Amino acid sequence: MARLRMGMIGGGPGAFIGPVHRIAAELDREIELVAGVFSSDADRSRAGGEAYRIDPDRAYPSLDAMFAAEKARGDGIDFVAIVSPNHHHLPAAKAALAAGYPVLSDKPMTATFAEAKELGEIVGQAGLPYGLSYTYSGYPLVREARERVAAGAIGSVRKVVVEYPQGWLAGEASGKQAEWRVDPARSGAGGCIGDIGVHAFHLAEFITGLRVTELLADLAAVVPGRALDDDCTVLLRFDNGARGVLLASQIEVGELNGLRIRLYGETGGIVWHQERPNTLTIHTIDGRTEIVHAGGAALGPIAQAATRTPAGHPEGYLEAFANLYRDFAKQLRGEPGSLIPGIDDGLRGMAFIDTAVRASADRAGWTAFTV
Amino acid sequence: MARLRMGMIGGGPGAFIGPVHRIAAELDREIELVAGVFSSDADRSRAGGEAYRIDPDRAYPSLDAMFAAEKARGDGIDFVAIVSPNHHHLPAAKAALAAGYPVLSDKPMTATFAEAKELGEIVGQAGLPYGLSYTYSGYPLVREARERVAAGAIGSVRKVVVEYPQGWLAGEASGKQAEWRVDPARSGAGGCIGDIGVHAFHLAEFITGLRVTELLADLAAVVPGRALDDDCTVLLRFDNGARGVLLASQIEVGELNGLRIRLYGETGGIVWHQERPNTLTIHTIDGRTEIVHAGGAALGPIAQAATRTPAGHPEGYLEAFANLYRDFAKQLRGEPGSLIPGIDDGLRGMAFIDTAVRASADRAGWTAFTV
Amino acid sequence: MARLRMGMIGGGPGAFIGPVHRIAAELDREIELVAGVFSSDADRSRAGGEAYRIDPDRAYPSLDAMFAAEKARGDGIDFVAIVSPNHHHLPAAKAALAAGYPVLSDKPMTATFAEAKELGEIVGQAGLPYGLSYTYSGYPLVREARERVAAGAIGSVRKVVVEYPQGWLAGEASGKQAEWRVDPARSGAGGCIGDIGVHAFHLAEFITGLRVTELLADLAAVVPGRALDDDCTVLLRFDNGARGVLLASQIEVGELNGLRIRLYGETGGIVWHQERPNTLTIHTIDGRTEIVHAGGAALGPIAQAATRTPAGHPEGYLEAFANLYRDFAKQLRGEPGSLIPGIDDGLRGMAFIDTAVRASADRAGWTAFTV
Amino acid sequence: MARLRMGMIGGGPGAFIGPVHRIAAELDREIELVAGVFSSDADRSRAGGEAYRIDPDRAYPSLDAMFAAEKARGDGIDFVAIVSPNHHHLPAAKAALAAGYPVLSDKPMTATFAEAKELGEIVGQAGLPYGLSYTYSGYPLVREARERVAAGAIGSVRKVVVEYPQGWLAGEASGKQAEWRVDPARSGAGGCIGDIGVHAFHLAEFITGLRVTELLADLAAVVPGRALDDDCTVLLRFDNGARGVLLASQIEVGELNGLRIRLYGETGGIVWHQERPNTLTIHTIDGRTEIVHAGGAALGPIAQAATRTPAGHPEGYLEAFANLYRDFAKQLRGEPGSLIPGIDDGLRGMAFIDTAVRASADRAGWTAFTV
Repeated sequence: MARLRMGMIGGGPGAFIGPVHRIAAELDREIELVAGVFSSDADRSRAGGEAYRIDPDRAYPSLDAMFAAEKARGDGIDFVAIVSPNHHHLPAAKAALAAGYPVLSDKPMTATFAEAKELGEIVGQAGLPYGLSYTYSGYPLVREARERVAAGAIGSVRKVVVEYPQGWLAGEASGKQAEWRVDPARSGAGGCIGDIGVHAFHLAEFITGLRVTELLADLAAVVPGRALDDDCTVLLRFDNGARGVLLASQIEVGELNGLRIRLYGETGGIVWHQERPNTLTIHTIDGRTEIVHAGGAALGPIAQAATRTPAGHPEGYLEAFANLYRDFAKQLRGEPGSLIPGIDDGLRGMAFIDTAVRASADRAGWTAFTV
Repeated sequence: MARLRMGMIGGGPGAFIGPVHRIAAELDREIELVAGVFSSDADRSRAGGEAYRIDPDRAYPSLDAMFAAEKARGDGIDFVAIVSPNHHHLPAAKAALAAGYPVLSDKPMTATFAEAKELGEIVGQAGLPYGLSYTYSGYPLVREARERVAAGAIGSVRKVVVEYPQGWLAGEASGKQAEWRVDPARSGAGGCIGDIGVHAFHLAEFITGLRVTELLADLAAVVPGRALDDDCTVLLRFDNGARGVLLASQIEVGELNGLRIRLYGETGGIVWHQERPNTLTIHTIDGRTEIVHAGGAALGPIAQAATRTPAGHPEGYLEAFANLYRDFAKQLRGEPGSLIPGIDDGLRGMAFIDTAVRASADRAGWTAFTV
Repeated sequence: MARLRMGMIGGGPGAFIGPVHRIAAELDREIELVAGVFSSDADRSRAGGEAYRIDPDRAYPSLDAMFAAEKARGDGIDFVAIVSPNHHHLPAAKAALAAGYPVLSDKPMTATFAEAKELGEIVGQAGLPYGLSYTYSGYPLVREARERVAAGAIGSVRKVVVEYPQGWLAGEASGKQAEWRVDPARSGAGGCIGDIGVHAFHLAEFITGLRVTELLADLAAVVPGRALDDDCTVLLRFDNGARGVLLASQIEVGELNGLRIRLYGETGGIVWHQERPNTLTIHTIDGRTEIVHAGGAALGPIAQAATRTPAGHPEGYLEAFANLYRDFAKQLRGEPGSLIPGIDDGLRGMAFIDTAVRASADRAGWTAFTV
Repeated sequence: MARLRMGMIGGGPGAFIGPVHRIAAELDREIELVAGVFSSDADRSRAGGEAYRIDPDRAYPSLDAMFAAEKARGDGIDFVAIVSPNHHHLPAAKAALAAGYPVLSDKPMTATFAEAKELGEIVGQAGLPYGLSYTYSGYPLVREARERVAAGAIGSVRKVVVEYPQGWLAGEASGKQAEWRVDPARSGAGGCIGDIGVHAFHLAEFITGLRVTELLADLAAVVPGRALDDDCTVLLRFDNGARGVLLASQIEVGELNGLRIRLYGETGGIVWHQERPNTLTIHTIDGRTEIVHAGGAALGPIAQAATRTPAGHPEGYLEAFANLYRDFAKQLRGEPGSLIPGIDDGLRGMAFIDTAVRASADRAGWTAFTV
């Protein structure tokens, strides 16, 4: 069975997330990076192609060039991965879909909620697969948690605490990664809330299977002179009445990438931490605490399928990301079982950013959450 | 130098906190329990006295009886410790102060803010020492954190996340400890917020040296049929503009007594967790993480004085509590250096409970915090 | 019921373990320190008495003086606690037993195995209670582990790994605590092996219920110029054929008081670590890992009785020590249920030190262990 | 720059380590799997090729077939990776070297020390690159530890404790992975000592830069009926006089893949644990403890180069393995900086297994270690 051929949009010299997508896509040898527009600057795109060691002829200067050339080949690309900053997501996805290519996009879906709705309609009309890299939903134990909650392991969920602390923007934002994130023109209306808060939001909905119906947001730009929020507190209500707290920050000095979630139901609790992703803690109301290990015998089949090594061999961020690509490959091949987020998750994420930013600006108190 | 003699009010058969006060008071042999009104029921008071192995003649049936008898002795009590449920705190303290006895009271100060103000005035007029057992401020590394923040170790504080998760009231509240806590007549207006939220509030102010000026509260009784809150989210603003989040819950299944605090400033971060109280994590903005050990060489003199064993010999809750008693003994002897909370902390705590309960009931949004 | 009255031998100004014994003895109010010979120097003994706040008349200059005076009182001491350096243990215990007093002695039993055998016979003839402070056997979860092993939770034990790493003697030994420990005249033949290795040995036998029958020892004085061992490796065989490894060191820089034990049987494993004493990890061969919490619902009655606070309120070294004193009080009162180590444990400990020191000096290979 | 082309030997259906090698080799896109003899059974080899999604024509039934066909192609393989059980390592390597191909071999080098010496000579004569997958030396923080030790961060090393506990062979050995490991015909003379003990041995020498000169071994087959050791204790002496303890076991129920190492020198200590590979703990003799994070600012350039994501994004076993392949690619290209183990490490490892097995069988006591 041949590998699926991927064209990358973005991810040129200096990018962090481009190489991550490349590794994730290829990890299981179901997908191969063969082409790309790695930058809108032709020289930089070529340099990107070299870094990825692809055929130099397939490092294109523009989307049009890529689509035209790849269509003309017998072994042209099967889909595109969009890994450029947020404001490129919509135009790139539109162009790719118009050219008939399925899209796997880095999150968030677009720069604004309005754009997201536009893209949502376009995807609907195109009838092509669309996947979104809410990476953390690819972790085996996140999927295990989701299965266990669905199976009633903690009873009806009452409380969700999801946090995503980082500290790397506590000082001045310098460097390629930092600069676009604090620039509304490139990031969109949300700073921290769009960069990482939305991951936390998705994780909470993904694991619980619940939907947020109302929120109260308190966002701030803590570092002087910053135009976008870098510290966010959002209170949540879910459709079953459960209460939630979502904390995200990029000014918490010393925090690395500390996404973590705690779920409490009528009869149990579940705790997971991204920086120690290979264990899941399960509490039951009779006072027992169990540790579940990635790769271990206690895992259900979905989590089991999402691990590549036996328990005790740490898997991490890249492997979780690869699980999303493996899911997307399934979708492209028409196979069942994909858990990769798609348009609905994307729209909900953009609605979350939009609602939180607006509600916070107005000190609006509790605000209905609708998509 | 003779030991100070303590009379206990409350703490009879079945009580949890009475024996804890006894152990804490006596741990350093500066104080001795010699008398008490352990229950308002004479038989139960006597049984309490037996359990504590005090002179049976000094287990009194009433406060009046105790004060009269103890005053008549040459070796009568020097102060009282009030360890009964919240609604007894005011009358017991009033009676003791009127009889000329200093008071160490379990928290919260009283059942209501109005009572607290009344007591505050009485204490002021009495001119007698008054201490309050915000136990967690007695931990050596909490004090170390306070010293380091004051010394500028993390720069100006920007963000405080303080949490106090418990799970023991996730089911039906049964047993002596649980029942009074969910009963407004004995607990006062606050449930979880008064039982544990106020500890978190005090800890945040104690370590940072900042004062809350505004809050937004979202309290709920999650367990059906409960009259008092059992799950609390409170957003905070401090007088230097810092942002805060305070989470307290008693329905988080599997959480034991998970008080923890994270402070982030312009140049560093500090993390402490009550269930692992003997380490303090210090982050600095240059990317370094240091672990400070209780009893270790890196401690300042205040924390050093609050430990009794070398690093690696775990000290815990009882020792932290004992530090408050040691402070109170200092105060009674007119010695400097006491860090035990007093009237001001008590009033602020009661104002916190009161404001949070009111603001939450009204869905009032951001509410000024004044004492 | 009156408290038992304790006389202390040793523990004067500058001592670490004296105050620890005092706190532990009094923690449950079953015992009271009332007298002592805190130093063989009369002035220092008096200063010790003042520090403990006992009646100045009962801080004696010599054992003879204490025994004579206390016998003459109606409220004289009921037993003695010996907390002086190792070479005092035998003469002090002999004198106390001769005077008719039960003895609770700090470990190790004596300075040499020969002395231990002598003391063992004396105790046998005296027919008086004798307890030994292998402190770590007082931890609730150590006792829980013992109960679970006895109940077959891990099947027949196959392997024991017990370690006791410290780092405080990695540099020059200075200060009162360090100096006597590296001096053969005061410590006896063993350095690290006698100071901490013997704790590890006792813990292994205590939890497993097995007895060591053979050992291979490799002891060394790593720090130049040191007369006694400061780093020990001992291989063990137990009477059921189980294999063991015992590591103890005082030159492992950064290690604090890291006693830990791992037991593996045919069907399970148990892990405990003194620096995190309030959790016990239980593995079963079907791949499950359970965390048991001190004070939690999963504890058996013996461990439950050894905790004083609910789960989540850390208890530590002093509380574990207090459990030994509570056991000893039971013994003095003729009550059942004491788990405090006694003469047999003491003899085995001294035999362990003696055998290990000899076997190591000779590079003797596997050596039979007999008492 | 074109990718290097890899041919795999072994790793067919049901293999664990074959896919791991494939992922590791390709992770950085410097190497591509293009051919293989995945099994000595032609059908199974073909099935292996399909699973890896390589050109079906390049899944060969024998080494001879592969070498002949690949040599005939313009784009033939550049090197081979040997991932079959231990007894195949020598013949496969010999054949590959004879055909002119560099070799990256799974560890251990061969089944016996005699074979290793034979292979060592062949490699010497062939003058071709030879790499060995002591995977754990690929972890960024292992390399950081090595750099720090070399730079004197802990002073002269005095003590090494390296452990490799597993529990998966505590019961009956069933399944493809387990069966060959307990079979002397396929594993060689060592069971646990050869499967994992040798990893621990290599890690200790790799990080410290020291060489073992003497050892004392105590190996056993704990599970009844087992022909090879499943539990190993080895005492070590290093060439600078440092003392070491190496523990490896496959019968420690509940242990997953718990390789860990602690190094103590005159002025500091370093601790690393494979199951939490992204932090390194550094102790200094002044009582400080620092946590170093993979991907963080405190890393030296070598460790920095071995990470692919920012701190807080967990990397694990596959990424560590990929670092070895990246090193090997450097070597093939004649670039400097490779840290992949080679012939010398292989010989030392085989000598370790051989010496330990012999010394243990004889109860030989301390035995000189020579290669």
